[in-house]
Amino acid sequence: MSQNTPLPFAKMHGLGNDFVVIDTRETPVAMDAPLARAIADRKTGVGCDQLILIGASDRADVSMRIFNQDGSEVEACGNATRCVPLFTGRDVTIETKAGLLHAARIGGLVSVDMGEPRFGWEDIPLAYAMDTLAMPASWDDLPPPAAVNVGNPHVVFFLDDPARVDMARLGPLIETDPLFPRRVNVNFAHLVDDDHIRLTVWERGAGFTRACGTGACATAIAAIRRKLAHGPVRVTLEGGDLLIDWTPGGHITMTGPAVHVFDGVLDPGSFTATP
Amino acid sequence: MSQNTPLPFAKMHGLGNDFVVIDTRETPVAMDAPLARAIADRKTGVGCDQLILIGASDRADVSMRIFNQDGSEVEACGNATRCVPLFTGRDVTIETKAGLLHAARIGGLVSVDMGEPRFGWEDIPLAYAMDTLAMPASWDDLPPPAAVNVGNPHVVFFLDDPARVDMARLGPLIETDPLFPRRVNVNFAHLVDDDHIRLTVWERGAGFTRACGTGACATAIAAIRRKLAHGPVRVTLEGGDLLIDWTPGGHITMTGPAVHVFDGVLDPGSFTATP
Repeated sequence: MSQNTPLPFAKMHGLGNDFVVIDTRETPVAMDAPLARAIADRKTGVGCDQLILIGASDRADVSMRIFNQDGSEVEACGNATRCVPLFTGRDVTIETKAGLLHAARIGGLVSVDMGEPRFGWEDIPLAYAMDTLAMPASWDDLPPPAAVNVGNPHVVFFLDDPARVDMARLGPLIETDPLFPRRVNVNFAHLVDDDHIRLTVWERGAGFTRACGTGACATAIAAIRRKLAHGPVRVTLEGGDLLIDWTPGGHITMTGPAVHVFDGVLDPGSFTATP
Repeated sequence: MSQNTPLPFAKMHGLGNDFVVIDTRETPVAMDAPLARAIADRKTGVGCDQLILIGASDRADVSMRIFNQDGSEVEACGNATRCVPLFTGRDVTIETKAGLLHAARIGGLVSVDMGEPRFGWEDIPLAYAMDTLAMPASWDDLPPPAAVNVGNPHVVFFLDDPARVDMARLGPLIETDPLFPRRVNVNFAHLVDDDHIRLTVWERGAGFTRACGTGACATAIAAIRRKLAHGPVRVTLEGGDLLIDWTPGGHITMTGPAVHVFDGVLDPGSFTATP
């Protein structure tokens, strides 16, 4: 860890998925896993699910890097992306590891162009070639899932009766199945209506969360691809609702809330006391 | 909830027991249980174990009120008391519901005069009269505990082999035993040496915590009263060490770390989005 000066940040959340957002455009921050873990610690740091670094970009208005609580870096986070225009104070194009995304404020919500989904087995990625619309793979009595990459890898199960599925056992089992060489996010969906889905997500590396923005995108797209639903689809997660729109061949649009909770300045002296 | 303007605060911790500290001396804050819960929420608020309100006082330099995560108000918190001189920037006498306390910075640590312990059965309080040095009360194979009030009620068990005690079952059982009309904090102690104790605390209303300052005081006093130890006693908790000194008839002194993590300003708009 090398943070020796007071570090300004903002705390934000999207559907209860919470972030520490740091602006590195003018003052670089030497982020590493120990510093990310220290900041993310909910008792002795600021506390967050993910740490977001906003940086300069040659290709877009800003760049975004995303670190998990454990210090690992991830490609995409839909809830974090909605927070960026709130942080910068204007609509922005964002360079991410998952490609260029555009985020705009509409009323009290934020709408994000999440780019094009990918359906090739090597794009998910899967371990070998297979149909990704109805994968010939099964776990217990689960129906064949759909696979889609929306910046990160997802499988989606459409369930008639989610209450009868042991998600806490199946989530980690499927996440780490050798079929998914980069592991996978596992979506347990229930079609309420042809424009409304209830969703529980087992997130890769994080477990159950109150809301997963990319999971909502992947699930709505899988439903539209299977002609179970038409866009825009309302996806209800434990943390609240997202509106997902997609036309085959086009870009995904995700619309939902983003909340600024507080601004803070981190005391570098506090780290020396952290074990 | 009635907070309509930006609300400045500090985030601090003592041995990992973490606090949001708000100065109400110049600008009153209409604190109620819903606002305390909203601020203490670790996802959609600031996040803390306890919320500390610093106020003006006629009897001392400042007053301190303490709210738990659930919005209930409590009398005493040793770890929070150590944070007060760090917050005010000078040594202070503090008016609390548990009496007047004095807190002073010594080197990188903070030393607090926690006042006099009370040993009367009605002071703890217990449901009926009994010896508080070795209570004629037992749960499973636990030895007779000592009871002491150090601003809040405690029982202390000295155990030869804490690993063999099912603290997770006995903690809540003893906390809510009708013998304790205001419930009780439960201390599971192991005497390492006559000046060193290892301690695990089941906190009333909070469960296991990484460190309980009043529990360390109560336990050291019980050991000194039983002539198992002499002061100053080093008490090792999961979150770190506290040094407790006490002479029968005198005041308790608790010395340990207090850490300033960050300063922040809460956005009142964030509350309207909180369910």
